[in-house]
Parts: sequence; structure tokens; C-alpha cells
Amino acid sequence: MTLQHHDHDPDADPASLVYTFGGAAPVASVAPGTVLSTWTRDCFAGRVSTRDHLASQRVDPRFLNPQTGPFFVEGAEPGDTLALHFVSIEPRETWGVSTTVPFFGALTSTLLTPTLQVALPELTWIYGIDTEAGLVRYEARDSDFTVDLPLDPMHGTVGVAPALGEVRNSLVPGDWGGNMDTPELRAGTTVYLGVNVPGALFSLGDGHARQGEGETCGVAVETAMDTVLVVDLIKGAPCPWPRLESDTHLIATGSTRPLDDALRIAHAELVHWVVAETGLSTMDAYQLVSQTVETPVANMVDTAYTVTAKFPKALLGDRAPMGGVHERLKAIARVTLGETPRKQGGRSS
Amino acid sequence: MTLQHHDHDPDADPASLVYTFGGAAPVASVAPGTVLSTWTRDCFAGRVSTRDHLASQRVDPRFLNPQTGPFFVEGAEPGDTLALHFVSIEPRETWGVSTTVPFFGALTSTLLTPTLQVALPELTWIYGIDTEAGLVRYEARDSDFTVDLPLDPMHGTVGVAPALGEVRNSLVPGDWGGNMDTPELRAGTTVYLGVNVPGALFSLGDGHARQGEGETCGVAVETAMDTVLVVDLIKGAPCPWPRLESDTHLIATGSTRPLDDALRIAHAELVHWVVAETGLSTMDAYQLVSQTVETPVANMVDTAYTVTAKFPKALLGDRAPMGGVHERLKAIARVTLGETPRKQGGRSS
Amino acid sequence: MTLQHHDHDPDADPASLVYTFGGAAPVASVAPGTVLSTWTRDCFAGRVSTRDHLASQRVDPRFLNPQTGPFFVEGAEPGDTLALHFVSIEPRETWGVSTTVPFFGALTSTLLTPTLQVALPELTWIYGIDTEAGLVRYEARDSDFTVDLPLDPMHGTVGVAPALGEVRNSLVPGDWGGNMDTPELRAGTTVYLGVNVPGALFSLGDGHARQGEGETCGVAVETAMDTVLVVDLIKGAPCPWPRLESDTHLIATGSTRPLDDALRIAHAELVHWVVAETGLSTMDAYQLVSQTVETPVANMVDTAYTVTAKFPKALLGDRAPMGGVHERLKAIARVTLGETPRKQGGRSS
Amino acid sequence: MTLQHHDHDPDADPASLVYTFGGAAPVASVAPGTVLSTWTRDCFAGRVSTRDHLASQRVDPRFLNPQTGPFFVEGAEPGDTLALHFVSIEPRETWGVSTTVPFFGALTSTLLTPTLQVALPELTWIYGIDTEAGLVRYEARDSDFTVDLPLDPMHGTVGVAPALGEVRNSLVPGDWGGNMDTPELRAGTTVYLGVNVPGALFSLGDGHARQGEGETCGVAVETAMDTVLVVDLIKGAPCPWPRLESDTHLIATGSTRPLDDALRIAHAELVHWVVAETGLSTMDAYQLVSQTVETPVANMVDTAYTVTAKFPKALLGDRAPMGGVHERLKAIARVTLGETPRKQGGRSS
Repeated sequence: MTLQHHDHDPDADPASLVYTFGGAAPVASVAPGTVLSTWTRDCFAGRVSTRDHLASQRVDPRFLNPQTGPFFVEGAEPGDTLALHFVSIEPRETWGVSTTVPFFGALTSTLLTPTLQVALPELTWIYGIDTEAGLVRYEARDSDFTVDLPLDPMHGTVGVAPALGEVRNSLVPGDWGGNMDTPELRAGTTVYLGVNVPGALFSLGDGHARQGEGETCGVAVETAMDTVLVVDLIKGAPCPWPRLESDTHLIATGSTRPLDDALRIAHAELVHWVVAETGLSTMDAYQLVSQTVETPVANMVDTAYTVTAKFPKALLGDRAPMGGVHERLKAIARVTLGETPRKQGGRSS
Repeated sequence: MTLQHHDHDPDADPASLVYTFGGAAPVASVAPGTVLSTWTRDCFAGRVSTRDHLASQRVDPRFLNPQTGPFFVEGAEPGDTLALHFVSIEPRETWGVSTTVPFFGALTSTLLTPTLQVALPELTWIYGIDTEAGLVRYEARDSDFTVDLPLDPMHGTVGVAPALGEVRNSLVPGDWGGNMDTPELRAGTTVYLGVNVPGALFSLGDGHARQGEGETCGVAVETAMDTVLVVDLIKGAPCPWPRLESDTHLIATGSTRPLDDALRIAHAELVHWVVAETGLSTMDAYQLVSQTVETPVANMVDTAYTVTAKFPKALLGDRAPMGGVHERLKAIARVTLGETPRKQGGRSS
Repeated sequence: MTLQHHDHDPDADPASLVYTFGGAAPVASVAPGTVLSTWTRDCFAGRVSTRDHLASQRVDPRFLNPQTGPFFVEGAEPGDTLALHFVSIEPRETWGVSTTVPFFGALTSTLLTPTLQVALPELTWIYGIDTEAGLVRYEARDSDFTVDLPLDPMHGTVGVAPALGEVRNSLVPGDWGGNMDTPELRAGTTVYLGVNVPGALFSLGDGHARQGEGETCGVAVETAMDTVLVVDLIKGAPCPWPRLESDTHLIATGSTRPLDDALRIAHAELVHWVVAETGLSTMDAYQLVSQTVETPVANMVDTAYTVTAKFPKALLGDRAPMGGVHERLKAIARVTLGETPRKQGGRSS
Repeated sequence: MTLQHHDHDPDADPASLVYTFGGAAPVASVAPGTVLSTWTRDCFAGRVSTRDHLASQRVDPRFLNPQTGPFFVEGAEPGDTLALHFVSIEPRETWGVSTTVPFFGALTSTLLTPTLQVALPELTWIYGIDTEAGLVRYEARDSDFTVDLPLDPMHGTVGVAPALGEVRNSLVPGDWGGNMDTPELRAGTTVYLGVNVPGALFSLGDGHARQGEGETCGVAVETAMDTVLVVDLIKGAPCPWPRLESDTHLIATGSTRPLDDALRIAHAELVHWVVAETGLSTMDAYQLVSQTVETPVANMVDTAYTVTAKFPKALLGDRAPMGGVHERLKAIARVTLGETPRKQGGRSS
């Protein structure tokens, strides 16, 4: 197998960082099948790096969550589905950062759920990241409590240009993907995104060394990431909401407010997906999903909330979901990881 | 260790089945430390047992989800916390049942989310239960698709009499427990419930051979259960919302509508719980929970919805949550299971 | 016309005040057609009467919102509809009270929408009530701003015993009525409530000298009320959710969380009501309601939220809604007001 | 008073119709103080004009709700507030149209509140509009029921370019205004919109001959409108959410999902507005708003829902809200109306 490679360094043109999905010119054009190696800045673009830094003082609120991209995918047309297989996602730094943000998060009133109460304090936590040991070190601010957490790198944000000519801020998730903030988006996963504009114009960013389900305080363990992914295209197959596929699960997503509706979208999409893969009737699939689905909340802090609905692939027998794209891209990933030194190939190589 | 045992057979007095939390006289009085062996009917009281049965024709809608109990716990007073450790939960039958119910479920309009659309069809699925193999067999109605699912028995419903003199139907979850429908409530788990009335008056029912997270269609794999549990009491410690403790996780719950608020309750309760167990400041606990919490949706189909928030006990070091009740009751469970052959976890012992 | 009269003085038996719908023995039995004269305490039972009083210090939180009743209606059976026509609602005092309550209200986090923020301050405002002038006087606490508001007396709470054996606290609204807190429930209005238990067992309370739509801070201008109402019964006609009828509008209600679902209930009920009164098809009624409905929010502060949906009776032509009950009870009201001195007949007499 | 006038005919350049807020070049530049006369197409651009027309067959779903504009306002900078006083809004045609749309509306499942149920039927209703009599004639499809409704013309959509570089479809409401669908936006009203980009870039459209509160079926009585408005600018004063001012009320708006949060935004904004106009403390204003606010739901059918919160200006005494802009623009409106015969409020002047 001879692979096409494309390396993209966002530092080559600092002006190229984008803060929207849609509304930006592509930084590169890649053919389906290309292995793309790139990296992403953390959501604060590295400007909040000590416990005494406050995001509100160091970051222009108009320029949060910079994305690397967008990339133009050759041949992508509205009605197709973009497949992005994440080969590796590796922290570039030995530290990550989380903060509280006034009026942002699940356990505070917010700009969209306002009250007359005063804000929670704005605070910053710095985490040590040990990629060799696979650990992230939490240190309390107000006591000497420390504890090591498992490193579990992921991208909070990946998406394409939205439909209907919309341009959406990179803090928002929706049917174009965007800031879904699901810990399921880790290396080894394939993400499917419906194409809305010629070239799809996908971007990615918002690396997290790890996050809890719901991202309660609104900010994960944010860090810059070295990322390798394989780009592919499924022609003529629409994908109304982003889907993920891991080695073990089909994962449907829904992003809106309230969580009720995000869950409805994710579960209805999963039912339709199971129908498509198994030939079950809709009511039979509804029944099977009801007894087997896992439903972790991804985030309840962004402008829209994201719920994921997971179905065990073991129940599919030998059926290959989505026409076998995931297995095909995994094969490319294996070649890629074999071809390249560890630092570009992910820690599990 | 000499254990107190109490066996309760709800068939001894068929009139004793109750359909509410609160508003019923106790069927028995048990002292803290008692090992209680009993059994529960399925949510349809066994009346829906073939694929051609329709719940709407065979069950009086006023009498759904019968509970075994209530049990009066000696010495329990408002402001105490009841601890119920589930030693074993075993299907009594070799079959379970699920159905769709018109205008009930997450992917249909409902009585509380009405539309002008027609209802989905009412259908029944019968599952084979193989307790030896630990499997539940799904069979599609409209095709020959069949698949084995892992058996994972649990109680959908457990609770105490509510506060403020309220009497609540057994289909509703809330701060008294009730119909939380969380798959986390399996054998090996301790449930904590705040006591609202003298004697606590707890009941249980709604056995599920398994269910998905969210209980999408509204009905799990319903089956009668043989259940053994240890009853204990934590004096002078309130518990505003039900908590669960497994060997691996602290699990806070919240039950209300919409899911957003159920999540807020569960996450806020978990933060307060972590503060109590670790001495962390509230903001430090908020941060630690944000990076580590798991947030499976329990149900989005009942009159109120339930979200669970799980915190890994490994992060607590050698701290024993809730004063060590779970470990203490596990020791009793081990003695109980050692005293009796495995199937004796059930009523026939 | 010879009217049956019944006077009920809740002070005659102070123990008779109740704090639930359901779960209480009737204080009196009345026949359909009876004119009932009674009075209700304010929601704090008079214990918060100066600007320096704090409800949290002066009122047992288990005993808020006392109701007068329940009244047993002769002949009322499940499946019937109770009709209560409010002849007059008159403040008994020259003052009313409002407060903020920690973690209660629409612009604060609450027990069911918790955050980690501190509560808003608990404060009390005393209003002067001038029934002659028809004014309620607001006085700011922190400045010398004062302004007169129109007196608009109403009952926040009226309801029957709930279905399914439930007993609900008087702070909760639902399909049994209860704490709907709609300003539409003023003198001249007929309230329809579905009967769930023999005798219906209705109660009323929570007089407001006036309130805004939504009851933003959670507490209206609370005051004791002298109230006269006519009790009637529609046999064999169910009423799934409370309805109100004024001289000008059909008013459907829905009470649940979130507001979205309360609105869906109220609008769907209104469509079904218009179908029943006009013979329009459901889709035609949906269309007509869409262009003509008024949708004031009643409350977004109670345990469930209430939305009202109002349809102009002028569009019905000469059709008499609900079989003409409202007009018939108005005729009784006119006789009643003519028979009795002003103090028992409402200020407009 | 010498007025600046600008006439804009969207037919002069058919390509000029826009379907987004943001992302479009201005069609004209106007100075503050200008009287702008223009007209707007109906939301289907006139293509659904008989009872047998179906929008799904006649309208490209990417091109719904065309806007007239955007207009560049000279001197407008981010941080300013745009004031648009609607002098007249007059139907251009003698007919309007409403429809049901599959999976759109408050009493059906939708794309964002999906279920597995089938859609309601797609139907079209044509209304006669009699501007002289001020009537809109409803005719049932399935019976011979007809009724005249009051004509009450309004714009469902008016807004500026959003912040953060976003481009939003004209079907969405938000803090930039957009598709708020509130019947309060009638002639005689001033709309205040925060400016996000140089020139503000406001557009308007979506005329309704009338609509109910909530716009239940999702489509009002849609019609093309002749509209005259006065454009003004308040320098250096931000406006976080759209405000309306009528002769009688301050009207705050909030647009998001669920309705709960839209209400919280509208009520919190109204409290802050009352504080600014009266000097009351926040808690005193919270109290006063609680007893006096009217809270009609505007729409619960668009991608976000809109709630309005109305405060009686009579309570302000002789304070002139927003520095007296409304009265100043009304004076211009009077001159404008005096200058031109009544029908000249429209395009043909």
C-alpha cells in the first residue's frame, strides 16, 4: 500500500488559525485516502499557562478555540459523507490547563441560563502530563490533595462548513460537528460528517488530555496536540448528524438544547443507523437499542449540548458498518504507524 | 458474625402489593443489620407474557409497577439515611418482556410532551433468560434476527416514603428514589436514601434482566426477581438525593425534567459528596469532578428523568466513603452468600 | 331562583388547614349548585407581615401555602368534571406581602436547577392594599421609589385530589390543578377540573392581590382572601387538564417542566377544546389556534411550571362552551351578588 | 423638520434578496435619522398562493424567509445600539398564506425534537386580507367554518449581522434579532438591536398579517409588506439582547431553547432595563417586575424559541426610556405620515 501524506504546520502561517466553521478559505487541499499529519493549539492558544493566569485577562474572547484548517477534500460534494479516522492524538506539551470561566459551565448560571446571582470565582488549574506513564496530574489549589488521572487524549472540536451558508463559531456544536466535546473522539475512532459545501472544508482543534462526561466546569484539561488522521470520502451517502465509529461501538451524536432533545436526536439517529446496518424494522431496532444503548452525556456547557448514544458492534455479527470504511482506514493507520517513528504515530504504537 | 434474617413473600398477602411510595402500611418491621430475602413481581405483574399480549388490554393502568413493601426500619427517623446493600438480584423466570406503550417513551410524543401525531404501534417482545449462561435473547418481530445480550439484573425501582406528606405513584422517580431506572442498581451496590418519615418505609420492585441507558422505548426487559439485601441505617446524616455506591464508584443521582436539571442535580450532589469525602474545597472538587465524572443517562421516559454521575473511588485513596458502610455491608453479604447456596439468593431458600 | 348557600370558616377548626391535594378528610359536603362563601389564609398563614420578617425564620417550610378545604362535592365521580365559578375574590387585609426566598424563583438557581453559586438575599416587601381605590402600593427597599399598581385579586391555588392515589404538596401544580399561579384565575372566571376520586375533594388558597406573568421572584403579593364561588358538576365528561373560562376566553392550561412541554400541553388541549366546541377538524383547529392564541406564562417558579393558552370566545359565534355552564353559573353569581351585602359579594358588586 | 428619505425596492435587483444575517453585502447605506421606505416578500417569496400549493414542492428549502437588506447604517460601530422605529407595516396583497410543514411546529416532533412517529399532513390555508376593514378571513379546509380575525400586521424577522463572524440563517432568532416572530413587532414600535459589525447591516422580512402567540403550527398568516421605518443610532450604548419599545411597554426578548432559558433571558434583561431607567436596586427591580410583568411567548417553533417580557411604561412616571429615542422617532413618524397619504406608508409612495 502506498499512502499519500500531507503535513500541515499551522505555524507556517499564523494568520491561518480560524475560529469558525464555514467562512474561511482552505489552507490545503487533500485527496481522499490522504494521511494528514498536523497539530492543534489549545483552546486558549497557549496564553493561559500558569496557575496565576486568568483567561479573561489574557485571551480576547472573540478568539477562543482556534482550529487548524479548513482542509478542502478533493471531490467532496453536498450529500457525501466525510470520514476522518484518527490515527493518533498526542499531547505536544508536558502540561495542560483547565479553568473556571465566569458564567460558563454546568453548575453556574450562564449567558443563556441567566440568573441575578454573582459568578463563581475565576480560577486556573495546571496539570502535569506524562505521556510515557499515560498520566495527568491533578493538584488542588486550596489543599495539598493531588492525584494522577489516566491520560486519554481527544479532540473536543472537529467539523465541516455548515449548511445554508451559515458560519458558526468554533465554540458551538451542531449537525456540522464542531465543539461536541465528547471523550469518545480519541485515537482509533472514525468520525463521519455530512458534507454541506464543495470540498467539505473540515477543521479540528480543542485537544483535551482528558475530560469528564458533561465537561462540568466547561473546560477540560486543554493542551496542544500532534494529530495524525486519514481522510476519506463516502460518495452519495448523506449523514444528517455526526457519527463516530470505534472498534467496539457505533456512536450517534445529537447537539442542541435542552439535553432531552440532544438525546432524542442521538437515539433516533442510532435507531436509523441500526436499521441501515441490520435490516431490522424500525420498531425492532427501537426495541434492540432500548435494551443495549449506552448514553454518556458529552457536554452540557457549550452553546448547544451534546449527547452520544453507543451501540455495541458485537451485536452486528459480521456486518461491516458504513460499508467497511472504519476497517479500511484502520489498515491505513497500521501502515502509517509502521512507517513513522513513534512521536508521529501515537503512544499505543 | 450472627445475622438477623427476614424473609418476606409478597404472595402471602396478595393485597399487600403497593403502587405508591408513601400512603401504605408496612408489611414488616426490620432492624438495621437485617438480611432481607424477598421477591418482586415484574412491572405488569406477570400479565403480559406472550408476544400477542398487549399491556393496554391486560393491565389496569392504575396498577402498574407493583412494589414489594413497604418495610418499616426500626429506629429510622427523618434526617437519617437508609442504606440498602443489594446482595443478589436473580431472575425468577426464564423469560422477560418488553413492549412499546402508546405515547410513552423517548422517541414518541407523550402525555407530557404531546403533539397531534398518531401513536407508534403497541408491540410486545418476549426475551428468553438463561441465568446459567448469563444471557438474554432478543428476537426481532419482523425478521429472523436474533442476538444474545448479557444478562445484567437490576431493580428499576427502590425508594422510601416521600417528604411533606406526599404519596407518589411507583412510576415516578424523585428525591425519595422511586422509579429511577438506572442500570447501576445491580447486585453488589449500596443505595443510600434520605429518611423522611419514621421507619423510612422502603419498597422495591421493577426488576429488569437488563436495560439500555435512557430506557429508550420506556420498557426494559421486565421480569420477576429474587432479591436479597442488607438493611442498615446511618443515624443523623441526611441524604438529599439518592446515592449509589459500587465497589468502584460513587454514584450521585438527580431526577426531574428536563435532563439538564437532572444532570445539574446529580453533578452538584457529586461535587458536595466529593467535598465531604476528601476535604477538597468546593471549587477544587468541581474541577476534579469535571475531569473524571462519567455521566450515563438512566432514563428519559418516566414522569421525571434520571441522570447518574459517577466518580471513581480509586481517586479517594484509602478514604472509606459514607463512613465505610458499603464495605461493612459487603462483609455481611459475603457471610450471607457463604451461608446459602447460590440460588438461595432468591425466595426459594 | 333559590340558591343553596354554604359558609365555611377555616378558623372554626384551625387544624383543618391542609397542605396537600389528596390525603385529607373533607371539611364539608356541598351539593352541585351550592354557593360557597369562605376565606383563605395567605401562603405564609399571616406570619410574615412586616418588612423585617423573614419567611425562613417565621414559617415551618413543611407548612407553606395552607388550603381551605377539601370540600366533598355530592355526586362527583371519577370521569366527571367539577366546575367552580369564582363570584368574588376580595382581600381581607389592607396589606399584602412578597419576599425573595433563597434558591426559589425564576432568576436564581433552585433546588431543581442547582448551581454552586450563593443564594440571592432573602428580603421582604410589604404592599398596601386599597380595595376601594383598587390599588396595590409598591415601595422599594433601597430607595424612595413608590408606585401604585392595579389591584387584581386571584387565587394561585385551586385543585382536586389527584389520580392514582397520589397526594401532592400544595406548592405543586399539575393535572389536578393545584398551585398553577395564573393571574387568569380571577373573579368572573369558571375553573374546570377533572374529578379523580369520589367527591372530587377540592381545596383553594394562595390569594394574590396581583402577580406578574411568570411570578418571577417566586412570590406574588400574597394576602388572605374572602372568596365566594359556585360549585357545579358536569357528569360523564372528563377534563384531562384544568381549564378556565372567562367572559372572553377559553383558557387551557399545562403544568410540567420544562416550559416547552407545559406549552405543548396547553396548546394541544386548546386545539382539542376548539375541535369539541366548533366541529372543526383537528388540523383546521390547529391552524385557527395558531393565528389567534394568546400564550401568557403563568409561573416558572413552582415545582412544575404553568402555561396558559387563550382562545377568543368571539370566534365561536353563538356556540356556548362546555354546554353553557359558565353562563349558567354567572346567572347564579348575579343573584348571589344581588342577595348579599358588598363584603360578601366582591368589589364590583 | 427636514427628513432624509431612502426608498429601497428589492425587485430592482432580484439577486439582492438574502437568506442570512451576516455574510451579505449591503444594498444601501443610510444615515441615522433616515426614513426608509421599502417592502418585503412573504416567507415563501410568493410561491405558495393557493390552497393546493405545497411549500415542499414549490420552495427550495435552502431559500426560505428572504430578507430585504442588509442596510449599512453610517457611523454604526460595535458597542452601539441600532434603533428602528416602525412607522407603518401594510400588507401589499389581498391574501396571506399559512401552511403546516412536516416536522415543523410546536405540536409535532421536529428535526430537533425527533420521534419515530409519522409527520402530520402538509396543508395550505389561504386567508383573505381586507386592509380597509382591518380583517383577515380564516376558512377551514374540512368544513364550511369561516371567521374574520383582526388584521394585526407585523414583521417576524428583523436583525443585524451577528457577532464573532457568525452568519445565521434567516429562520433563526438570537441576540442579533432575526426570526423572533413576536406579534409585538408592529407599527408604532421601536426595535433596539446591539451593533456587532461596522454599519450594523440590518435586514427585515417575514411579514405576518397576524399570528398567535407561540406561532403554534410554525407558520403565521404570511404576506408581503410595505414598510416604512426610521433608522437611528444610540452611540456607545450596548444592547445585549433585542429590545422593543411601544407607547405602553418596555419589551425585553430572549431567544434560545428551551423556553425556560428564553424566559430567563427576557426577564433578566427586563430587570436590568428597569434598573437602568429607574435607579432601583436590582433586588427592588426584581420585585417590581415580578408583580407587573406580562410574559407572552412569541414563538416555540423556530430553531430557537422567543419569549417577550413586557413592563408597563406607566410605572416609570415621566422617565423617558433609552434617552427618549422612541418619542423622538415617533415625532419623525408623525411628520412622515403627515407628509404622505396613508397608503403611502408603502412602496408605491
